[in-house]
Amino acid sequence: MTHKLALIGFGTVGQGLAEILRDKGDLLRENLGFDGQIVAISDFIKGSLYHPDGLDVAALLEVVQSTGKLDDYPDQPGLVRGWDSLTTIRRSNANSVVEVAYTDIKTGQPAIDHCRAAFESGKNVVMSNKGPVALAYQELAALARQNGVRWGFEGTVMSGTPALRMPLTSLAGNDIREVRGIFNGTTNYILTKMEEGMSYANALAQAQELGYAEADPTADVEGFDALGKVVILANVIMGAPLTKDDVPCRGISHLTLDDIAQAKAQGKRWKLLARCKKEGDSVTASVAPEMVPLTDPLAGIMGATNAITYDCDLAGPITLVGAGAGRTETGFSILIDLINIHRGNI
Amino acid sequence: MTHKLALIGFGTVGQGLAEILRDKGDLLRENLGFDGQIVAISDFIKGSLYHPDGLDVAALLEVVQSTGKLDDYPDQPGLVRGWDSLTTIRRSNANSVVEVAYTDIKTGQPAIDHCRAAFESGKNVVMSNKGPVALAYQELAALARQNGVRWGFEGTVMSGTPALRMPLTSLAGNDIREVRGIFNGTTNYILTKMEEGMSYANALAQAQELGYAEADPTADVEGFDALGKVVILANVIMGAPLTKDDVPCRGISHLTLDDIAQAKAQGKRWKLLARCKKEGDSVTASVAPEMVPLTDPLAGIMGATNAITYDCDLAGPITLVGAGAGRTETGFSILIDLINIHRGNI
Repeated sequence: MTHKLALIGFGTVGQGLAEILRDKGDLLRENLGFDGQIVAISDFIKGSLYHPDGLDVAALLEVVQSTGKLDDYPDQPGLVRGWDSLTTIRRSNANSVVEVAYTDIKTGQPAIDHCRAAFESGKNVVMSNKGPVALAYQELAALARQNGVRWGFEGTVMSGTPALRMPLTSLAGNDIREVRGIFNGTTNYILTKMEEGMSYANALAQAQELGYAEADPTADVEGFDALGKVVILANVIMGAPLTKDDVPCRGISHLTLDDIAQAKAQGKRWKLLARCKKEGDSVTASVAPEMVPLTDPLAGIMGATNAITYDCDLAGPITLVGAGAGRTETGFSILIDLINIHRGNI
Repeated sequence: MTHKLALIGFGTVGQGLAEILRDKGDLLRENLGFDGQIVAISDFIKGSLYHPDGLDVAALLEVVQSTGKLDDYPDQPGLVRGWDSLTTIRRSNANSVVEVAYTDIKTGQPAIDHCRAAFESGKNVVMSNKGPVALAYQELAALARQNGVRWGFEGTVMSGTPALRMPLTSLAGNDIREVRGIFNGTTNYILTKMEEGMSYANALAQAQELGYAEADPTADVEGFDALGKVVILANVIMGAPLTKDDVPCRGISHLTLDDIAQAKAQGKRWKLLARCKKEGDSVTASVAPEMVPLTDPLAGIMGATNAITYDCDLAGPITLVGAGAGRTETGFSILIDLINIHRGNI
């Protein structure tokens, strides 16, 4: 059965997903029985399209990549243009809404409202934007449950690396007593370069040149990006309703080459670690740079790579290492949520 | 609904599973709705018990751990003693057979016959013994499918670390072009010690003292253990019907401290790597010691730990690190298969 998709937003992640559907659609149908079909796109800047029988994904990518807009997508009977995001969510015949629009990280909007509208319309939501999950997990998860629909957000932590799904599917039955990880590629890249002798300022400039860091790098270097992710892990993996205000957060901008040398002398390495720990019934979390012994698998994570260690009572410590960002990787994070909704699995 | 279990064998893994059910049974029922109940145990040496309404797991562990036998398990109405393994598999009311008996690694017997009998009786099989999977995957997987039952063997590769389930549930949709990994803790421990300056012979002796290596260490040090695991990965993850005879295999017994020093001088480290690679429609595999650059996540895996890297077309390279053996870890590998059979999930 066709799984009909409405994309809210058509930037990097939305186009990444569309490219996967264009290039691997036949394989996904044959191998997994997953037949994803884009029926609607609503982008605040690029324009909006809806056709209940599906849009031509190759044509969508061609027009948006050559003109930056959807206006030149060819007319056809039944095609509707100009619906805003909420209309698209409510009135399209999509099974799932792919929420990949720009979101205010402080308020989580408009993505939170998009989730509410979708769930209330009986539609699943899949997203890689961490705002709504970090800010409104308890409310939105309950609303999805009440409406009998699913909410996927694998990509919010470590992009397409299955930091959320793996423990839920494959470590169930364990008491996961602690998770700790490196969830910000920019700061890990900077620390890697500082270890090679580069100053903080130069390493940051290089990260910006490479596109890892934003022009305003505050969210990365002060730890706020990692903070959002550890809040998600606390809620989803540990079942603890922590909010950002519960989590002390310190970044790496104060670290000097002297600090780096001091760690090295002790057989250690600075890493910006986010931790979430269970003690009795209480769950606490933190984000801070720590000197990690070189024997810890997290110490070996270099460059923009991400990693997470789950400390399990039965399976022991298990570490997952992979990309934390990227167009195709994040497109895949959306796809794997959709595949598992299609399978009826976690 | 109760999930009734027949344990064929009651050694380390069987007792590890029983301890988990004894200690975490209530939590598993409450949190996951999984109610595992041992109705039968048939062990060639320790004896056999069957009760259709379930055995008392605490009592089972107490008698076996104090007497080495099941004979002192208290009598009760309906209790049957003395059934052999095939009778237990065929005549018990178990939903799933937990096959954890001693198996001849060369023939895979009697575990292969146990699987056949269970599938033909409409029972799922869960096991951590790699013999039947490495030797008879295609036949047994087909037989399970024909009979509408499930076959779980997460523990055959990396024990409770989800080397098989994680890619199937969480990386679906990727073309996994290569897997490579460290699947033998004994040899990785020996290589770690050699890197610290110990001779091969002394490192092997220490591994034997610690219980990592058998009195006859051939299967570990000559790579045959890793070979069985890469054959499983080829069949299960890559869908390629490779057998052991298709895979060139070389161990570590020829490595000297000079070899170790030579790798170090090149910024590398010897690891016994098993690889399985797709090129076009062809899949090839190998087991051999390789000099791995220190920048590779597999280079940092020290001691008896195991690790695997999946090279994914969409999600990029993803590495999973964890225990490759252990009583509770392997007990958990059985549990996670049972939980996912109960869930109806992969």
